[in-house]
Amino acid sequence: MEAKALVLEQRRELSLRSIDLPSRPGPDDVKIRIHTVGICGSDVHYYKHGRIGPFVVEEPMVLGHEASGTIIGIGSNVRHLKVGDRVCMEPGIPNPVSRASKLGVYNVDPEVRFWATPPVHGCLTPEIIHPAAFTYILPDNVSFAEGAMIEPFAIGMQAVVKADMRPGDLCVVTGAGPIGLMVALAALANGASEVLISDIVDEKLAIAEQYDGLTPVNTLNESLREALDQRCGGDWGADVVFEASGAPHVYDNIISYSRPAGTLVLVGMPIEPVNLDVVSAQAKELRIDTVFRYANVYDRAIALVASGKVDLTPLITDTLAFSQSIEAFERAAEALPGDIKLHITLGS
Amino acid sequence: MEAKALVLEQRRELSLRSIDLPSRPGPDDVKIRIHTVGICGSDVHYYKHGRIGPFVVEEPMVLGHEASGTIIGIGSNVRHLKVGDRVCMEPGIPNPVSRASKLGVYNVDPEVRFWATPPVHGCLTPEIIHPAAFTYILPDNVSFAEGAMIEPFAIGMQAVVKADMRPGDLCVVTGAGPIGLMVALAALANGASEVLISDIVDEKLAIAEQYDGLTPVNTLNESLREALDQRCGGDWGADVVFEASGAPHVYDNIISYSRPAGTLVLVGMPIEPVNLDVVSAQAKELRIDTVFRYANVYDRAIALVASGKVDLTPLITDTLAFSQSIEAFERAAEALPGDIKLHITLGS
Amino acid sequence: MEAKALVLEQRRELSLRSIDLPSRPGPDDVKIRIHTVGICGSDVHYYKHGRIGPFVVEEPMVLGHEASGTIIGIGSNVRHLKVGDRVCMEPGIPNPVSRASKLGVYNVDPEVRFWATPPVHGCLTPEIIHPAAFTYILPDNVSFAEGAMIEPFAIGMQAVVKADMRPGDLCVVTGAGPIGLMVALAALANGASEVLISDIVDEKLAIAEQYDGLTPVNTLNESLREALDQRCGGDWGADVVFEASGAPHVYDNIISYSRPAGTLVLVGMPIEPVNLDVVSAQAKELRIDTVFRYANVYDRAIALVASGKVDLTPLITDTLAFSQSIEAFERAAEALPGDIKLHITLGS
Amino acid sequence: MEAKALVLEQRRELSLRSIDLPSRPGPDDVKIRIHTVGICGSDVHYYKHGRIGPFVVEEPMVLGHEASGTIIGIGSNVRHLKVGDRVCMEPGIPNPVSRASKLGVYNVDPEVRFWATPPVHGCLTPEIIHPAAFTYILPDNVSFAEGAMIEPFAIGMQAVVKADMRPGDLCVVTGAGPIGLMVALAALANGASEVLISDIVDEKLAIAEQYDGLTPVNTLNESLREALDQRCGGDWGADVVFEASGAPHVYDNIISYSRPAGTLVLVGMPIEPVNLDVVSAQAKELRIDTVFRYANVYDRAIALVASGKVDLTPLITDTLAFSQSIEAFERAAEALPGDIKLHITLGS
Repeated sequence: MEAKALVLEQRRELSLRSIDLPSRPGPDDVKIRIHTVGICGSDVHYYKHGRIGPFVVEEPMVLGHEASGTIIGIGSNVRHLKVGDRVCMEPGIPNPVSRASKLGVYNVDPEVRFWATPPVHGCLTPEIIHPAAFTYILPDNVSFAEGAMIEPFAIGMQAVVKADMRPGDLCVVTGAGPIGLMVALAALANGASEVLISDIVDEKLAIAEQYDGLTPVNTLNESLREALDQRCGGDWGADVVFEASGAPHVYDNIISYSRPAGTLVLVGMPIEPVNLDVVSAQAKELRIDTVFRYANVYDRAIALVASGKVDLTPLITDTLAFSQSIEAFERAAEALPGDIKLHITLGS
Repeated sequence: MEAKALVLEQRRELSLRSIDLPSRPGPDDVKIRIHTVGICGSDVHYYKHGRIGPFVVEEPMVLGHEASGTIIGIGSNVRHLKVGDRVCMEPGIPNPVSRASKLGVYNVDPEVRFWATPPVHGCLTPEIIHPAAFTYILPDNVSFAEGAMIEPFAIGMQAVVKADMRPGDLCVVTGAGPIGLMVALAALANGASEVLISDIVDEKLAIAEQYDGLTPVNTLNESLREALDQRCGGDWGADVVFEASGAPHVYDNIISYSRPAGTLVLVGMPIEPVNLDVVSAQAKELRIDTVFRYANVYDRAIALVASGKVDLTPLITDTLAFSQSIEAFERAAEALPGDIKLHITLGS
Repeated sequence: MEAKALVLEQRRELSLRSIDLPSRPGPDDVKIRIHTVGICGSDVHYYKHGRIGPFVVEEPMVLGHEASGTIIGIGSNVRHLKVGDRVCMEPGIPNPVSRASKLGVYNVDPEVRFWATPPVHGCLTPEIIHPAAFTYILPDNVSFAEGAMIEPFAIGMQAVVKADMRPGDLCVVTGAGPIGLMVALAALANGASEVLISDIVDEKLAIAEQYDGLTPVNTLNESLREALDQRCGGDWGADVVFEASGAPHVYDNIISYSRPAGTLVLVGMPIEPVNLDVVSAQAKELRIDTVFRYANVYDRAIALVASGKVDLTPLITDTLAFSQSIEAFERAAEALPGDIKLHITLGS
Repeated sequence: MEAKALVLEQRRELSLRSIDLPSRPGPDDVKIRIHTVGICGSDVHYYKHGRIGPFVVEEPMVLGHEASGTIIGIGSNVRHLKVGDRVCMEPGIPNPVSRASKLGVYNVDPEVRFWATPPVHGCLTPEIIHPAAFTYILPDNVSFAEGAMIEPFAIGMQAVVKADMRPGDLCVVTGAGPIGLMVALAALANGASEVLISDIVDEKLAIAEQYDGLTPVNTLNESLREALDQRCGGDWGADVVFEASGAPHVYDNIISYSRPAGTLVLVGMPIEPVNLDVVSAQAKELRIDTVFRYANVYDRAIALVASGKVDLTPLITDTLAFSQSIEAFERAAEALPGDIKLHITLGS
């Protein structure tokens, strides 16, 4: 069926136009009227570069994968959802009986289909079809805007799940962009006593500073290692270090931030291979975990937002109408340091 | 050296009198002027019954093991502490090179010596000698009263460490006595989205109700399972259930509260063996963890209190002078439901 | 389609007769010609008692769930299997997108349908339809007879996975029936330095004794705790204890076999609740894991059998023809101590 | 007391001469007559280069840290050992109450003193003093030669403990030197169904080939990835990959060997930082663990050797007399591919 959508025609060319999309839910699917879609760094990267690594935009593709909305139709097998439910959606759909999915790590199923990752269309369109099993109810006290924040927050949740945190952990997050902030908030919610968050841009750190428990460190002026020394002594360090900048030079010092037997979680995605000092990592017997999207955290992320323990609203910088989608992407492409998250709203 | 102390002479007989205690720190020890000591259920149990299981009071024994104070002397090898430091102390001292200690589980070292567990004296006396390695600095914003709460809170911390919680866990705590409250607060600090805490005494539940995130359930009037049904549906349940009542009848239903592949942590200590429905536990493939005191959590507990994420002060019901110690124990022995924790202060 | 099958008409009544069964694979299914089916204790229990707990035989039901065979048809989506492949099958089919399945624990999905568990038919019939995702190729060096042993061995595998064993673990298995033996062999393959296996029946222990690394202990004559004392001293114990007898009285001593911070895995299924000494378990801070069938172990079980590290053939006591199925069940119902596993062969 | 010892006077200069060493056990120590000492790569590295990273030989230092012997004296507190016991020794002595030691990871205690790591003397001398807590009894069926192999085998054990292996794991070990072989044998003992071990030197691979379950892969002629494809398909891979070569170029492909959600354990010590492809690791959500010596594995290593599950004797290439120590080191410095382990014997 023809529907209006934000289409990336090719690198650097967006249009808001009609495109043919599925419109009838299968027996295990729901049909959703989209309310809010957040713009992610990966959407912007496809817009600017036409590709991310091996994923190349070769056909026009609808953008957007951070979404919330309302159910307007359900398939015949669906029982836990009903028309009218306010929901948000996991954008990756695995083969549910692949080896990876059977192990519970459906995020690394090689067959996964993910919104707005070529050749799969995203969700910047008024209505979409989605599997009910990857559609989650929003409690009454969670807004559509917050619902559209669950996707990026889920990455922070995945990072702290992989970190296997213990209550009272002292944490470091390198990088105060949207993902670094999400990781820091998830770490706080999951028992960190304090999170030192580092960047070189004061505007980003100022946003972090609004949260109790987040301590900004501008590494142009301050030493992260000295900040740790004050807290735990020179021969100890952070229980968990989350790398969320993707900047290669951060790897020059990152091992020095950890305590012996600490954990380093790699969330940021550096374009080129980085230099890893294996012997220094071994001397502390560091565990290094990596994060790829998320699995089994959406319900937990929603529960934490609903509980009031995590407030994502300060991270929503601005909200634009669907008709302004192209302008929204152009602004996102400028990457202003104060623009943490831009939202596009399709709902009334 | 002779020092005044609260001595349990034998079952039901306390005196505040002089007794011979060590007074000179060894090279790895510190000497501490005691400021505050909390009264624990186990102190009261020795007072009322003269024994706990195999541990029998056969000689006069000083009571008390929940303490804070100030360092007034240090041994020659001690480097991380100095005279004047405000501290709290882990009351159990293991053989540091036993098999269990080398594994990091020094709490289950069969050789551990624990304050106020026969035949080891406790700390209700103005000055004590303690190993520096089990003495922890209190930050400036943690009071002596809070410092004396670290010991019972450490049990809650140990319970959540054993539970291996994930962010957003829905938790149940059965029993709203001092230990149940400590477990519930530790679970909240460690990422629970909500903790249902059950009891049959409204006064206890009223104290829990003061905390955001703790939902009291009086099982005389309400069904815990129905409360779970509302939150997660009838074929799911709590991610983690903490049994903190020690009441045998709680075991009749406890498995029904867990979700498939959930975790049950046994903190309460029932006097007699309980009935465990193994097949029901297997049908959910439940993991059951048990808790014995604590290891490696004191620094984390202090960090969480210092961060403001955990407020233990509402649990301190009353504070009495050292000269009123016997009255304090008599009151504690009455076990009034509103008396969560009584403190004895020796400091000025 | 009508097919001959071993049908449990009702309690104590078996017939080998035609019954209507599905015959056409769906797109994700395969069709399998059954070669060998093992008789399990649960099959026998349904035969003798007509029920297991809440599962009641109310309609005629085909028995059998331990099977191997050859693929004779495949659905249109199936890629990793082809006609002619020799295979064995996981008998439990979950909803692949249930909450439990998404977590990787599809064995505890409340919706799972399991062969020969009312009202689901088993596989004692010449041909069956099965999901390809739960069908596993047998390497050339694994016989059909061994293939039919993968199902019971998978329970042993699940038990050692849950135990989270470490290389060189000293293990105890209580109960030397088929499941106890499977657990013991899995533990040996997974790095146990020695497995003490206890029973009160010498014929069962004699079978265990054939294996290097399994040490039989007849608890009528010998003390299991003394055997442990000789190996690790009186204040230590087994790293992992597997309860595989289901006998309530075994729980009287089972905690004494573990070392401090050890693990107890409950595999045997006692009909009634057992007495658990919680305080003794806590004093060692024991972890108690439970086992329900298995998930994600079939491929691993096959790999270990193919590697030669696990030899299951000594456990196959006798093999009977399909036409003798009723006699086979009558013999199994006698539970002779030397009858570990009876096989029924349908293949040529 | 003066004792004869193999002394590294400075880089490239060895002498067998008298040197002053402690001779009286403290209360928690034992005195041991050394029987066999293995030559380790690190000993040879100090001999050839005078340093390993920050550890510089500035004073004459006794070499050797892989040793077995017989107890000839015990301190007053020692209970679990007696004169005449045959033993082997953990060469690293931590501060037992440091933060790391209390956590059970005494190997990463910054204060650890390790034999033959400047400025600490090693054990190539007829008698040494050692803490009883780090001295382990050899069962009667474990020879002194095997006892001296426990130290290098412990590194393999630590690697598999960190890998958190599951039964039936398919493993890869890159590098078939002494450490690669130790890791491969530990992985086999701990439940691997098969270990592919790669190198570019056929003599080394020939030694691996003697063991059932080890499959040598000469990467000059064969593709390790193709070998994996045959075993598990192109979109899957090894459950655990152990890097044991320390060769930087191995990192070019190492991530490709793992399955989604697999584990990579870094055992080899590359001199310079390596190139790590973070995004490829993330796409599989790889966990990367590192290994530094070992903790809490000596008793397990001895148990596995005593059980017959691990045979280390084929790895002992030659045994020389103490008087030939200098020749032994010169030969070891040549690093002949067939010389896996050279032993020096001081015993009769």
